[in-house]
Amino acid sequence: MSQQTDFAYAADLDAQDPLAHFRKRFVISDPDLIYMDGNSLGRLPQDTVTLAEHLIQHQLGERLIRSWNEGWFVAPERVGAKIARLIGAESDEVIIADSTSVNLFKLVVAALRFQSGKTHILTDNLNFPSDIYILQGIVDLLDKQHELVFIPSPDDIYGPEDEIQNKLDSQTALLTLSHTVYKSGYMYDMPAITAAAHNAGALMLWDLSHSVGSVPVDLHAAQVDLAVGCTYKYLNGGPGAPAFLYIRRDLQDALRNPIAGWMGQRNPFNFDLEYRPTKGLRHFLTGTFPVVSLSLIESGVDVLLEAGLDNLRAKSVCQSEYLISLWEEILKPLGFILNSPRETSRRGSHVSLGHEEGLRIDQALIHEMNVLPDFRPPDTIRLGIAPIYTSYRDIHTTVMRMQKVVVDRLYEKYPTQAPTVT
Amino acid sequence: MSQQTDFAYAADLDAQDPLAHFRKRFVISDPDLIYMDGNSLGRLPQDTVTLAEHLIQHQLGERLIRSWNEGWFVAPERVGAKIARLIGAESDEVIIADSTSVNLFKLVVAALRFQSGKTHILTDNLNFPSDIYILQGIVDLLDKQHELVFIPSPDDIYGPEDEIQNKLDSQTALLTLSHTVYKSGYMYDMPAITAAAHNAGALMLWDLSHSVGSVPVDLHAAQVDLAVGCTYKYLNGGPGAPAFLYIRRDLQDALRNPIAGWMGQRNPFNFDLEYRPTKGLRHFLTGTFPVVSLSLIESGVDVLLEAGLDNLRAKSVCQSEYLISLWEEILKPLGFILNSPRETSRRGSHVSLGHEEGLRIDQALIHEMNVLPDFRPPDTIRLGIAPIYTSYRDIHTTVMRMQKVVVDRLYEKYPTQAPTVT
Repeated sequence: MSQQTDFAYAADLDAQDPLAHFRKRFVISDPDLIYMDGNSLGRLPQDTVTLAEHLIQHQLGERLIRSWNEGWFVAPERVGAKIARLIGAESDEVIIADSTSVNLFKLVVAALRFQSGKTHILTDNLNFPSDIYILQGIVDLLDKQHELVFIPSPDDIYGPEDEIQNKLDSQTALLTLSHTVYKSGYMYDMPAITAAAHNAGALMLWDLSHSVGSVPVDLHAAQVDLAVGCTYKYLNGGPGAPAFLYIRRDLQDALRNPIAGWMGQRNPFNFDLEYRPTKGLRHFLTGTFPVVSLSLIESGVDVLLEAGLDNLRAKSVCQSEYLISLWEEILKPLGFILNSPRETSRRGSHVSLGHEEGLRIDQALIHEMNVLPDFRPPDTIRLGIAPIYTSYRDIHTTVMRMQKVVVDRLYEKYPTQAPTVT
Repeated sequence: MSQQTDFAYAADLDAQDPLAHFRKRFVISDPDLIYMDGNSLGRLPQDTVTLAEHLIQHQLGERLIRSWNEGWFVAPERVGAKIARLIGAESDEVIIADSTSVNLFKLVVAALRFQSGKTHILTDNLNFPSDIYILQGIVDLLDKQHELVFIPSPDDIYGPEDEIQNKLDSQTALLTLSHTVYKSGYMYDMPAITAAAHNAGALMLWDLSHSVGSVPVDLHAAQVDLAVGCTYKYLNGGPGAPAFLYIRRDLQDALRNPIAGWMGQRNPFNFDLEYRPTKGLRHFLTGTFPVVSLSLIESGVDVLLEAGLDNLRAKSVCQSEYLISLWEEILKPLGFILNSPRETSRRGSHVSLGHEEGLRIDQALIHEMNVLPDFRPPDTIRLGIAPIYTSYRDIHTTVMRMQKVVVDRLYEKYPTQAPTVT
């Protein structure tokens, strides 16, 4: 019987995997390439190739402007309703619009105006830097009437859940966090944190970018107020595909979109000169959305819905545990440390491994070993598991190639510093 | 010898047209369809079909995340630099980002903060309603510290140039106008108006959405401060393709983007928690941009650059004059009125014809006659001339089919009111 460090063991796990056949639904042009970056940019679904042809040649080339009435106009709601099923929201609570950053801007400004008089925005230092920049820009824009309060993580791995609960008070307008933390993969207890925010009278906004499509999220059960997330990671929506936003139904008409756009205007084809927002979520659209990039999201979401999110999570947990056990046996002795929570219940779908030569190992993996992970400073190699297409053999091969890079010192020819721009 | 009302006359004009061969560079699947809506959504360039295949199957499917370093990251600047050549800007003064509305939001907020102490925003009632909504949202967001001043057009056709010059004063922070007006096609005198704004100490922002790619614009010669514009009309960039923004070089580092995004961060891959904008125009990017929709713009712009904008304008003028002379002879007696300026120097590349049955005639043209114009309330049928692919025969056929709709009263079966949403 094979040992878990054998390739045959990984092959056996693949043979037993009820989701293994979904891998064929994605374009895999180089069978030797090990792609561990699906949490940054997902693989291309086969159906997206067909959809893109139809969209460009038929909908645009043949139907031209008529396509706006034949599906484009309602695409933000149609695709949003499908994503809603992945995050425990109602179909009219999720819409596709703009980028995650622009959506965050709209929702945070709206939340601060709704919470008039409260001055604090709480977040942690594990949040996406891009989210922090948006918050800093808003504080600056609103004449520093608000204060951005950072709660530090004790170890840069675990979210500071207790500290957050202690800091919440009647001055807190908004608490915003990444549900699954981009670097360590730490996953917050969404119901508990949301309830704590509500107890203090704060609104809760979750960034679901590293959760959606890989871990079950139930926004309704947790009574979440606001959420944003991107579609190009585990949803496999294509590079920079527009993002989604969620607003709890009873808040939708109480919040005002600061970027008052034509797509959110009631009766936009009247061309009235006074902005009158339409009812419901659609008034959080801004200008005309990028139809091609937006439409291509749909086929990726369909594949995930077909596989079932609970099944995907179960596979992701098995694969992460398998990866961590290989790390323990093979990579830990080579100086790799686990920069993710050890408990599965507290970890999303990626595993972060630190190494003092992390940056150079990452370069060697890419350029010598045909493995694509990603690197997050100062030392972390991030291995994304996209259970819809990642195989156990992918994981086994990744570990073996990482071992080879370190044992054969293949990283030594790479620079110790990333190039910087000033 | 044929008369101008003969089809043969139109065919002769096409035969003499030095740009006629560019029509073959576009997908034309239904030769009977007369497409007069290229000022709303341009036709699909043949090269875009090839580019889309390469982008999706090779860049995304095969190269995956590596494509970010193989062209995607700099696509906003690369495509922006090409558009710069169409509007008289330097290559580092134009970038692609977000939608026109979001770009307008960023630039107007930045301009108002730069012009601290000045309280008035001037515009006219011919501007895009979508631009007005953005301005109204900004006034509301900034606690009504600013006032939005509308200058009315005397006749809803001509821009109120004298009134604007009279209203400009030391309180004016910003003057913003559509260079070519969406409804009447009126074209402002960019150098004169910009100079008047500067004389009063105001910044000048032009929306070029109905100008770019159809009329020559020279932002540098006019010393324009700011501009925005869309890419899906005469640039043929595809539905909702991201928009462009222009900032005069010496203002770029003086203005702050209120939506402080990761794509504008200096050394974004350091993942620092403090926003530090990169130098130059790139800090007006926000979040990750929709790569597919953005990249597809390029092939459409390339075709226009190949044809040459002065050549395109010359053809557009000839075609508009031809259309207006056919109107005079054939459509005016049937109750159509010219809702565009008669002087070519004051008209962009579309011609607006009003009729008391305009809405129903528009419906009949679409559903009975295979002509696609568009309709703008209360009475205007807008005929867009995209000189890169519109033929003289298209124009002749449009007029003949409009005549038939009125003479045979084909419009009578259509409702007199557009459906409304409440």
